[in-house]
Amino acid sequence: MNVWFTEQLHPFLRVNLRVERIVHEERSPYQHILVLDTAFFGRTLVLDGIIQLTELDNAGYHEMMVHVPALTVGAPKRALIVGGGDGAALVQMLRYPSLEEVVVCELDARVVEVCRAYFPAFARAWDDPRVRLITRDAFAYLEEQPGPFDVICADTTDPIGMAERLFSAEFLRLIVCALSPNGAAVTQCEQPYFDAALITQLYRAAQALVRHPAYYYVAVPTYPGGGIGFLYLSNQPWEKGLEHPYPPGENAYLNPQTHRAAFALPEFFRKALQS
Amino acid sequence: MNVWFTEQLHPFLRVNLRVERIVHEERSPYQHILVLDTAFFGRTLVLDGIIQLTELDNAGYHEMMVHVPALTVGAPKRALIVGGGDGAALVQMLRYPSLEEVVVCELDARVVEVCRAYFPAFARAWDDPRVRLITRDAFAYLEEQPGPFDVICADTTDPIGMAERLFSAEFLRLIVCALSPNGAAVTQCEQPYFDAALITQLYRAAQALVRHPAYYYVAVPTYPGGGIGFLYLSNQPWEKGLEHPYPPGENAYLNPQTHRAAFALPEFFRKALQS
Repeated sequence: MNVWFTEQLHPFLRVNLRVERIVHEERSPYQHILVLDTAFFGRTLVLDGIIQLTELDNAGYHEMMVHVPALTVGAPKRALIVGGGDGAALVQMLRYPSLEEVVVCELDARVVEVCRAYFPAFARAWDDPRVRLITRDAFAYLEEQPGPFDVICADTTDPIGMAERLFSAEFLRLIVCALSPNGAAVTQCEQPYFDAALITQLYRAAQALVRHPAYYYVAVPTYPGGGIGFLYLSNQPWEKGLEHPYPPGENAYLNPQTHRAAFALPEFFRKALQS
Repeated sequence: MNVWFTEQLHPFLRVNLRVERIVHEERSPYQHILVLDTAFFGRTLVLDGIIQLTELDNAGYHEMMVHVPALTVGAPKRALIVGGGDGAALVQMLRYPSLEEVVVCELDARVVEVCRAYFPAFARAWDDPRVRLITRDAFAYLEEQPGPFDVICADTTDPIGMAERLFSAEFLRLIVCALSPNGAAVTQCEQPYFDAALITQLYRAAQALVRHPAYYYVAVPTYPGGGIGFLYLSNQPWEKGLEHPYPPGENAYLNPQTHRAAFALPEFFRKALQS
């Protein structure tokens, strides 16, 4: 069927996925929610026109977002996921037997409800008694100092509209204030080739907040440019995560090699961050 | 300007770049050649509708294709580039002061002429007295046993039409036969998420031909899925390349970290290759 979904996050690039079925569409109080069945990539979540995840390639994003900080900590007890209403990061976080509570602070209750209905692989995670869903603005929630958390993952949309505040030095400060002393956080932090100025600015802010900030990059074929980066925030180096065993369950992307490799940055970008 | 170039290599995915100017278009005896100025990515070469390189992001591809095998060898004297009529791989190869001859075996003389005219950054490489351009089919050329070469880079288009033969066990055998005993070769080898079956098949063939086959992956934002892989063929392990100094000149992508990281494969794909 020659029906195509078109995504355009940057003014210079569009990505099209071939659509087999429009599964669900609605306008929630916060955003446009679209669930598609696409050729090859399978079921796909789109928010405000931007691809959030596909069945085929989401494992790299979610495993690397959750396990990189969680393995630094080793045996996390309390975790926070900012955004993440699709439940995919939650599935990864719940793999830690040490975990006692994970708060998911998602603005849009409809994202949670829609994904529970249409993404069965992530749906049952919400039934775990360790999960606490808070449907409100993460900025306001963090200002109330709900920490300490051992692990924080900011699984945000892109810096447009309301989410723009989630790409600020102040948001990073709130994240770091909510971390336990040996905790580790990561925030979704865009694409080195396309967003170098924003990333460099946030990296500078991170340097003022923690002892071991770092930037890492994960291949995700359906994201613009084929991948996405994360800002790592901790007073412990990410290399500590290489010493700890993986939680029970299968990895599709993460292994000791990809864990280390994610922090290897192209020379032009390494120089930009170090300068 | 709302003019877009659309690429579709796979049935399920399209990539669009915003066009600022159509610089050159022609149909050569072998293929359609298109040179565009695109927003953000700059000057772009398109062959038979498929993006070959952009000014902005080609360094990762060419540095990693040339230096990974060349650094294994250390001080290569004789090299072969299969395809590569744009001259970008040639620029990287010529950085080795040890190099005495580099043969570029490119089928389509028009690609060389068009790129010399419109890609000034790569054009002057052809004036180097060490370069020998042979405009003919690489398969036929290799059957005449023109080796030994210390380094071979198969900078091919995708396995469609005439280039399909360049993704066969027989082509890999011809490459390996043309290598000097301590030489190293790489062949362009597609995308792990999209082309796992083809890659696995070629990797199996490589295992029967050399002691240290390997697969590595490089981020290239304008390629479908945001990157491309290479099959490494040598009786010396790629890690040997980490011991040798870089040739004179600047790297935009390669550093010791990205060199190593390229060989770190997502767990699902590592398993597929090992099984």
